[in-house]
Amino acid sequence: MTTLTPEQTSVEADQQSRPVLALDIGGTKVAVAVVTADGRTHGLLVEPTHRDRGPADVIRRLFDMGHRSLRAAGLTAPVEAVGISCGGPLDARAGILISPFHLPGWIDIPITELASREFGLPAVLQNDASTAALAEYRYGAGRGLGTVVYLTISTGVGGGFVIDGELYRGAAGNGGEPGHITVRAGGRPCSCGRRGCLEAYCSGNNIGRRGAEAAAAAHAAGRATLLAGLTTVTAQDVSRAAAAGDPVAGEVWDETTALLGQALTDLVNVLEPDAVILGGGVTRAGAMLLDPVRQAVKEGAMGPAGDAVTVTLAALGDEVCVVGAGAIAHDRLAQDQNA
Amino acid sequence: MTTLTPEQTSVEADQQSRPVLALDIGGTKVAVAVVTADGRTHGLLVEPTHRDRGPADVIRRLFDMGHRSLRAAGLTAPVEAVGISCGGPLDARAGILISPFHLPGWIDIPITELASREFGLPAVLQNDASTAALAEYRYGAGRGLGTVVYLTISTGVGGGFVIDGELYRGAAGNGGEPGHITVRAGGRPCSCGRRGCLEAYCSGNNIGRRGAEAAAAAHAAGRATLLAGLTTVTAQDVSRAAAAGDPVAGEVWDETTALLGQALTDLVNVLEPDAVILGGGVTRAGAMLLDPVRQAVKEGAMGPAGDAVTVTLAALGDEVCVVGAGAIAHDRLAQDQNA
Repeated sequence: MTTLTPEQTSVEADQQSRPVLALDIGGTKVAVAVVTADGRTHGLLVEPTHRDRGPADVIRRLFDMGHRSLRAAGLTAPVEAVGISCGGPLDARAGILISPFHLPGWIDIPITELASREFGLPAVLQNDASTAALAEYRYGAGRGLGTVVYLTISTGVGGGFVIDGELYRGAAGNGGEPGHITVRAGGRPCSCGRRGCLEAYCSGNNIGRRGAEAAAAAHAAGRATLLAGLTTVTAQDVSRAAAAGDPVAGEVWDETTALLGQALTDLVNVLEPDAVILGGGVTRAGAMLLDPVRQAVKEGAMGPAGDAVTVTLAALGDEVCVVGAGAIAHDRLAQDQNA
Repeated sequence: MTTLTPEQTSVEADQQSRPVLALDIGGTKVAVAVVTADGRTHGLLVEPTHRDRGPADVIRRLFDMGHRSLRAAGLTAPVEAVGISCGGPLDARAGILISPFHLPGWIDIPITELASREFGLPAVLQNDASTAALAEYRYGAGRGLGTVVYLTISTGVGGGFVIDGELYRGAAGNGGEPGHITVRAGGRPCSCGRRGCLEAYCSGNNIGRRGAEAAAAAHAAGRATLLAGLTTVTAQDVSRAAAAGDPVAGEVWDETTALLGQALTDLVNVLEPDAVILGGGVTRAGAMLLDPVRQAVKEGAMGPAGDAVTVTLAALGDEVCVVGAGAIAHDRLAQDQNA
């Protein structure tokens, strides 16, 4: 048995302070944990969403996971709030999932009201890109900084900003959509209805699509490529083939990093952040993604903005949204205390 | 003689409350006034800069104007601070004019220290695009709103943001440079060293240059245009000729509003502001500028961001920077009071 010093006991107590229940509703997986004020998860559960079973079934299982997580966490302090992270469109202020892109058929679900009733606690909702931004700022790659731009590059391209330590919410409460900055005016059609957005080129889906198109063009031109013969091409196929020296994949990848670098330079010029943090599945490509993008920002951004910023990869990994859901619940408690 | 009711007396007193001395150092003109907490100017003086006479001479005359303005304002309450508005590059935190583009030869001028010594008051400095943004937010077209994007389209394209009522400063203290968002990747060279920035197309100077280029191309192609035969082409020449139905000028103008609309759509998607406010000399074109830009934003921005935003012209006119210089001084006093 370990005997704790008074200092350790106090640290232990602090780490377990202000527990909140955090729910992250993804299209493939749901994650639930109790999150303490130090950003640690307790009783983390990750299970498949089975979104085809519909909202009532998913929400029932989500709440059951919440109760199991509360028991598994085994904390002595009572849980004080529920934080919920989900993809948009959603109305964060009203606590309603309007029609999340990744959850077809979920229309106008009053998720905070349902959670509040289920757990007998105040509940808050926020866009998953925003919760991730807040989590990286508070506990990850943005720790100790003032203003952070976070971009998640996965199926789509989302993001959020923390400005002077506060999650930026914007007039509509969605906190900004850096994935829909123009990189090629009149270019590829985007899910938002415009053309040429960053997401239309640099989301995982669209890197894959551009890889497939490049493979088809290479085939027609009699050019060999590692991307030939794949039933579907993913962003990972493209980055791996590019890393292996495949010229066709290399062109797709270079265009990807060039356009991402351009959009980040724009964001750095506009917002002059302390850091740009890149997360999401596509960033598993690591230095192959980070190095050219970092160089583009350093070369392209205005002097003071370029000097002030660091461009870095996210630190929190898969748990980022559940930690962020906890963070928005902590923010809510802090607001209530100040009010 | 008018007898004031107690309520009027109190309003009068409030309007004259917290007077500060405001100095705006432009490339052509300097403006000085006492500004009260209601945003009104008292003892406003506007005189030529004569920047060719060098910083020592200009600053001496600027400070003399300050003393004259204090006497002319004739307020009973004592002036509490000095606010200074100037173009960049400058270091707002340190109060130093590093090397303003519009004041060649002004290098590392410690303007707040000089002003503070001259007037025996605390002094603050801010970028003129930021002071204008704050003035429009507090006293102009952004009154009563939360988050405002302000763009000034004159010789260059500058801007500033007010987020939840606070002037946004950014990590480097310059508050963001929306003029350097990319509108045409690899396009026209920009003063910042990159290519394709908004400023490279839509500043007054560059609208004029594009007009001159279009006139030359029209001449070579045997096409008539009202822009032919002008020694230099200004943005106003282009907008007036376009308004008169000149097809060559019309093409230049349409490209201008399309690119401005694209950049504003990007900014609206990224920041979800309550309002975009357009100021600066080029906006004297009025509805010819505003209508197509407004339509582009409404059509192009993501649903919630597009619904939330209004796009409007600035309300304060030529005095905007001197009023803004007063506003940053008021902010400084409020900070000191809260500290």
